[in-house]
Amino acid sequence: MAQKVLVTGGGGYIGSHCVVELIEAGFCPVVIDNFSNAVRGEGDVPESLRRIEKILDTSIEFHELDLLDRPGLEKLFKQHSFSAVMHFAGLKAVGESVEQPLRYYQVNLTATMNLLEVMQTHGVHNLVFSSSATVYGDPQRLPIDEQHPVGGCTNPYGKTKYFIEEMIMDQCKAEKVLTGTRCCCGISTPLGLTPLGSSEKTLRASPTTWVRDYIHVVDLAKGHIAALKKLKDNCGCKVYNLGTGTGYSVLQMVKAMEKASGIEIMYLIAPRRGGDVASCYADPRLAEKELGWKADFNLERMCKDLWRWQSKNPTGFTSNGPSS
Amino acid sequence: MAQKVLVTGGGGYIGSHCVVELIEAGFCPVVIDNFSNAVRGEGDVPESLRRIEKILDTSIEFHELDLLDRPGLEKLFKQHSFSAVMHFAGLKAVGESVEQPLRYYQVNLTATMNLLEVMQTHGVHNLVFSSSATVYGDPQRLPIDEQHPVGGCTNPYGKTKYFIEEMIMDQCKAEKVLTGTRCCCGISTPLGLTPLGSSEKTLRASPTTWVRDYIHVVDLAKGHIAALKKLKDNCGCKVYNLGTGTGYSVLQMVKAMEKASGIEIMYLIAPRRGGDVASCYADPRLAEKELGWKADFNLERMCKDLWRWQSKNPTGFTSNGPSS
Repeated sequence: MAQKVLVTGGGGYIGSHCVVELIEAGFCPVVIDNFSNAVRGEGDVPESLRRIEKILDTSIEFHELDLLDRPGLEKLFKQHSFSAVMHFAGLKAVGESVEQPLRYYQVNLTATMNLLEVMQTHGVHNLVFSSSATVYGDPQRLPIDEQHPVGGCTNPYGKTKYFIEEMIMDQCKAEKVLTGTRCCCGISTPLGLTPLGSSEKTLRASPTTWVRDYIHVVDLAKGHIAALKKLKDNCGCKVYNLGTGTGYSVLQMVKAMEKASGIEIMYLIAPRRGGDVASCYADPRLAEKELGWKADFNLERMCKDLWRWQSKNPTGFTSNGPSS
Repeated sequence: MAQKVLVTGGGGYIGSHCVVELIEAGFCPVVIDNFSNAVRGEGDVPESLRRIEKILDTSIEFHELDLLDRPGLEKLFKQHSFSAVMHFAGLKAVGESVEQPLRYYQVNLTATMNLLEVMQTHGVHNLVFSSSATVYGDPQRLPIDEQHPVGGCTNPYGKTKYFIEEMIMDQCKAEKVLTGTRCCCGISTPLGLTPLGSSEKTLRASPTTWVRDYIHVVDLAKGHIAALKKLKDNCGCKVYNLGTGTGYSVLQMVKAMEKASGIEIMYLIAPRRGGDVASCYADPRLAEKELGWKADFNLERMCKDLWRWQSKNPTGFTSNGPSS
């Protein structure tokens, strides 16, 4: 029988792509989401999951649940026997976190503490936590490997990711049985470039310095599944940076999108957004060596796929839009 | 009319001494405590406060309240108009935190997030947070000044203090109106040496390396009051290390206690306790310069006072013991 894997925030961008890969890999995902980011589709299911069900001709178990709802979470763990948890849920806007730090701390930390406690109570010992490159703060060296010092985060969002990592590591040490593979996602996805579709855009970056490790979301999802499979080795708490290993500037990204879409993109150079670091790209060699994973898709393909989706869904997810 | 100051964990060791100093300085303390450390005395009041009331011939407003009880906290803030909060509440045993990290994160972080949110809702903008030298991790240099890097904490207890500091600083930036003076207490008190009274003791330290900045609890309390007074300057978020500036080894402390008590102390050298750093003492010059505070009592006096109290209260606080 397929192993049940709980996916928190599984209606979101990375989470829903991981659901696809979980199904493809023979796992049985059970998804929870509170719709703080996911778009509500037909039947009160995230639109992302509704489309996945249609494309893969399958049904996905979904529960509308907030991790802050402790009794609801307890009930879920009583109903299911999970072999592992993949944790994506959380608030994730860097700028917003600078404005509303307490909300970010309260939501992201409490959600994770609840999850870890309920996992402990119910004897669930395997966890993949989807972290963020912001835990490395302003990088001391590039590319960023897993030995790079953590902390010194430049915004509260990043601090919540960092604090959660520390909690998981401490819990691993104390519990012995908890094996957490922490995936530090090697950064952003092409969607970071939106909004497309308006005639005037502000590009908040100095074009020569703001460099990111753009990675195809399918590659990212596959990296998380590779980490999940690693857990069967009782590997203890491990960290893997997922990225392509290549940094592209925002202007290079603009040019690639222009090429993919055939449309000239207007932009305005503006000061860097608060809380963002200048340059950041990952060293993915450890993930390749220990997980057997590496990114397959290049920048051209990312832009092509993004543009195809964007063209079919000009206003993003809507419950009666086309399937992608 | 005297300004009302909320003291969380005000039944505890440092908190209750701060209550004394608040009263002496003309403030009106309102104390909350959940008795997780404080000893329950007559009338369901912490025994520490009961004795203070007797000695100072005054009455102290006390509420049995856990900061995790959010509605109870809201109610308290509705009933009172606080000019400031002094925050001492929290779990505080280093070794225990290594064994039960989730409990420490859940209790200490959630308590503080609740407090900060309720302060924000009710327009209370002044906070003195009693932190810990463990936020500095294994010191890179001695004495430790306020510019010393934070983080790299060696145990979950220290991490909770560090995370709370980051939350407060972020909240100060976002809110502008919040002015927090964070006192990083220059460490331990002679009570760290107990248990006294049994014939065999284990001294968990290498005698030549384990050095601490032992400070008289009355000095420490006065430092917190000095920080509280600083808040009226709308100083923003400031950090002050409170300590004597002098490090003593555990063996020196044993010798000083032998002298004060006239009793030979038996001990056994044992490996260092998990999560403890080797040496740690503070540079208190900034506190002297900006707060006009410095420690008055020396090691001899600390031991003398401790021994007098211990002799009169051989089993610690009990509700029918002698007043100190």
